[in-house]
Amino acid sequence: MTVGFLAVEIIKRKRDGGGLSEQEIQDFIKGYVNGTVADYQMSALLMAIFLRGMDTKETLSLTKSMLHSGEIMDFSAIPGFKVDKHSTGGVGDKTSLIIAPLVAACGVAVPMISGRGLGHTGGTLDKLESIPGFNTQIDLKAFRLLIEKLGVGLIGQTQEICPADKKIYALRDVTGTVESLPLICASIMSKKLAEGIDGLVLDVKWGSGAFMKTQAQAEELARSLIDIGKGYGKKVVALITDMNQPLGRFAGNSLEIQECLDIMENKPGFPDTRELSLRLSAEMIALGKNISVAQAHQLAEENLVNGLALKKFREICKAQSGDLAHLPKPKCQLVVKSASDGFVQSLDTEKIGISGIMIRAGRAKTSDTIDPTAGIEFRAKIGDSVRAGQPLFTLYGESLSLLQSAQEQLRTCVHISLQKPATPTLIVKRLE
Amino acid sequence: MTVGFLAVEIIKRKRDGGGLSEQEIQDFIKGYVNGTVADYQMSALLMAIFLRGMDTKETLSLTKSMLHSGEIMDFSAIPGFKVDKHSTGGVGDKTSLIIAPLVAACGVAVPMISGRGLGHTGGTLDKLESIPGFNTQIDLKAFRLLIEKLGVGLIGQTQEICPADKKIYALRDVTGTVESLPLICASIMSKKLAEGIDGLVLDVKWGSGAFMKTQAQAEELARSLIDIGKGYGKKVVALITDMNQPLGRFAGNSLEIQECLDIMENKPGFPDTRELSLRLSAEMIALGKNISVAQAHQLAEENLVNGLALKKFREICKAQSGDLAHLPKPKCQLVVKSASDGFVQSLDTEKIGISGIMIRAGRAKTSDTIDPTAGIEFRAKIGDSVRAGQPLFTLYGESLSLLQSAQEQLRTCVHISLQKPATPTLIVKRLE
Repeated sequence: MTVGFLAVEIIKRKRDGGGLSEQEIQDFIKGYVNGTVADYQMSALLMAIFLRGMDTKETLSLTKSMLHSGEIMDFSAIPGFKVDKHSTGGVGDKTSLIIAPLVAACGVAVPMISGRGLGHTGGTLDKLESIPGFNTQIDLKAFRLLIEKLGVGLIGQTQEICPADKKIYALRDVTGTVESLPLICASIMSKKLAEGIDGLVLDVKWGSGAFMKTQAQAEELARSLIDIGKGYGKKVVALITDMNQPLGRFAGNSLEIQECLDIMENKPGFPDTRELSLRLSAEMIALGKNISVAQAHQLAEENLVNGLALKKFREICKAQSGDLAHLPKPKCQLVVKSASDGFVQSLDTEKIGISGIMIRAGRAKTSDTIDPTAGIEFRAKIGDSVRAGQPLFTLYGESLSLLQSAQEQLRTCVHISLQKPATPTLIVKRLE
Repeated sequence: MTVGFLAVEIIKRKRDGGGLSEQEIQDFIKGYVNGTVADYQMSALLMAIFLRGMDTKETLSLTKSMLHSGEIMDFSAIPGFKVDKHSTGGVGDKTSLIIAPLVAACGVAVPMISGRGLGHTGGTLDKLESIPGFNTQIDLKAFRLLIEKLGVGLIGQTQEICPADKKIYALRDVTGTVESLPLICASIMSKKLAEGIDGLVLDVKWGSGAFMKTQAQAEELARSLIDIGKGYGKKVVALITDMNQPLGRFAGNSLEIQECLDIMENKPGFPDTRELSLRLSAEMIALGKNISVAQAHQLAEENLVNGLALKKFREICKAQSGDLAHLPKPKCQLVVKSASDGFVQSLDTEKIGISGIMIRAGRAKTSDTIDPTAGIEFRAKIGDSVRAGQPLFTLYGESLSLLQSAQEQLRTCVHISLQKPATPTLIVKRLE
C-alpha cells in the first residue's frame, strides 16, 4: 500500500464522519511535511475536518503531530516557571508589548514567539519591527540566551518550530478552511507547546472584530484550548474578552508601540489597554509564582507604575537591536468626521481592520508590504456621544491619498443612534 | 479583487451550504483550467461539494462549464440522428463492443468516445486496444470522417474534449471526492454532450460491482443524468441494470473481445451480455429512428443474427487499423475451485474486479500497464449449484505465478450456501 493510497483512505474516513486514529493523523501530517502527501490532498482533508469536525482525542493527536513536526524547546535548565500569553487576535490588540516586559520584570520568564498580522488583525512581530533595527528573526540558541539573561525574548516563528503548522496555515488561508475549531486549536497549541512553557494564559476574544463572533463560540474555543493544554500537563487559564470595538486608542504598528510606551510611562488616556494588560499579566504571574491572582495583580501594577516594565522593555529593545529613540512618525493625517448626532451604538470592527489594510497598516496577503507608521486612532468608542462634524477617526500614514481612499469605508463602520447603548464589558469571563 | 481571492469566497460559500451562481462556477472552472485556481483550491471545493451537495441548477452550470472548457463536436452536417450509450461501469461490461456496430448497422450513427479502465471496472478503450494495431487515439477531424463513412467510430477522449473534466477527474481520484452525485453527473454528461449527439441511452448499474450499491442510488443518479440531458434538449433514456455479478462469461480485455465476436457469430453461451446489448441497442435505435422500442428490438436482433453487426465491427477494425485475425491468446490458465457444496448465493463483484488488477487485467492507477490477455472466466454465477472441487473461475494470462497470487482472494468472493437464491433480474427498470 503506497502512502498516496493511504492518504485517500484517511480523507475518505473523515469525509464520511469517521474518527481518525493517532497513527493515521501522524502519517498524514508527516507525509505532508515530507511531500508524499500533496497540497491538494491536505486541502481535501482540511475541508472534511472543517465540515465533519474532530473530537478531543483527534484534536490532541493533530496537535501532537504538528508539535512533533519540528523542534520543541526545553527551558528546564533555566530555573523558574516559564509562561506565555496567546491572544486569538483583534484590532488594536497590543497587550503583548506590555505583558512580556511586565511579567518578566516581576520575575516570571516569558519566552514569547509571535506572528505577523494578516487580514483585519494585527501581529506583534509587525509592531516590534516598526522599531528601527528591532530583530525578531533570532535562532533558538540566541533566543535561549535572551531568556537566560533578561527572562524574556520576543521573536518570530522559526523554521525549526512546527513546520507542519506553517505549511498547513498557509494552505488554510487560500482554501477557506481557517475558521475550524479543531484546526485553530491544533495550530495555536502546537506552537505554544513548542515554546517549552509551563503555563499559558489565553486571551480569547469575541465580537465584531474577533474570529469568534459570539461569546459562546469564544468560550467553546477557550475550553478546547484549555483541554489540550491540560492534556499536556500545562497550567492554562483563559480570559474571554471583548472585541466588539478596537482595543485602546490606536491600531497601526508604530502607533501601537507609542501607546504601550505611554502606558508604561504612566500617561493617562488608555484605560482598556492598561486594564487588559494588567489582568492578563496578573494571571501569568499568579501561575508563575503560585500566588493569588489578586496578589499578582498588585505586583504587576507596582512594576508597571514604578517603571520597571518600561526598563525591561528598553532592555529587550537593546538586546534585540531595536532603536526606540527613532520610532518613525507618520507624515500625514486625516480626520474622519461624523455625519450625524447621537451615541456610538456599535462598530464594525472587522471592517475597521480591513480599512487598515487599505492604508497599508496591515496586509491582505502575506506578501504585502506595510507602512510602519500607518494606522487609525479611535476618537469615538461605543457609548460615546458625537455631534455631526466631530471626529470619529484620525488616520495616519505616509500617503494622504491612501488615507483618503479609506475615509468613506471607515465612516460606514460606525453606527450612530440617539439611544445611549450599554458599554461593553472588557473582561467577561475567566475559565481554567 | 484577484481571481485567487474570489476562489476562496466561492469555496467558503459552498462550504457553508450556499448555492453557487452559474458565473461563479464558470469562473472557478475556467480559472482551474488556465491555472489561476490551484489544485488545492479545486480539491477543497470538490470536498465541499461532496459534503454539501449541489442542486439541479448548479449541476447544470457545472456541466455547462466543463462542456465549454473544450471543443464541442458538431455533426449536424451529417444527416440523421446521432446517439451514444453510457454505462456507469462494472465488471465484464462489454456491451459497447456489440452495440456500436449493431446500432450503426441499423442505420443510426454512433460517435462513441470511451475511457480506460480504472480500479475494479474495465474500460472500452483497453478492450479495443487488445486488438493488435487498433488505434483509438484519433483526432476529431478523422473521427468525423469515420462517422461519415461507417456511421460509427470508437475513440478515446482527446485533449480537445472537456479538458476541465480530465483535470478534475484525476484530482477527484486522489482526494476522496469520486462518489458525489453532482460531480459524477457533470463529468459524464459534459463528455457525452461534447460528442454532438442527439440522444443518449444510459446503462446505470447497481449492486456489488457497481459504483451505486443500491437500486435507489442508481435511480437517483439516472434521474439526475436524464434531467441534465433534457436541460440540453437531448432525448435520454436510462435502463437500471444489475451489477451484483459480472456481466457475461469473461472479464479481461482480449477475452471480452472474443466474447463479443462469439455473440456476433451467433455462438451460444452468453445470454446476459447478448440480452443487455440488444436491449440497449433497441433503445438507441428507437430514439434514432423514432420507432417503438419493440420494433427497434426486432430490427436489432435481425442485424445481430444476419451477421451485419459483425460485418460492421470488422469494418471498424479495418478503418481503425485493428488486426482481428491476430487477437492475442493467453499463455496460461488456472482453475479456482469451490471448497464446498451448495448454491452461489452472492458474489463480491468489486473484489472480483480488484482481483483482476492483481493479474494485470486492470489497473489500480492510470500509469499501470496491463496484460491484454489476462482475465477471469466466471464458471458459476448466482443461483448455480456447485460441488466442492468444481470450478468457480478460470484465470487467464501471461504469468502463472500472477494467476496464483489472485486465487485465494477470488475464492473469498463467492458466497455459497445450501439454500437456492433468487437469480437477479438483469434489467430492473426503464426511466426516461
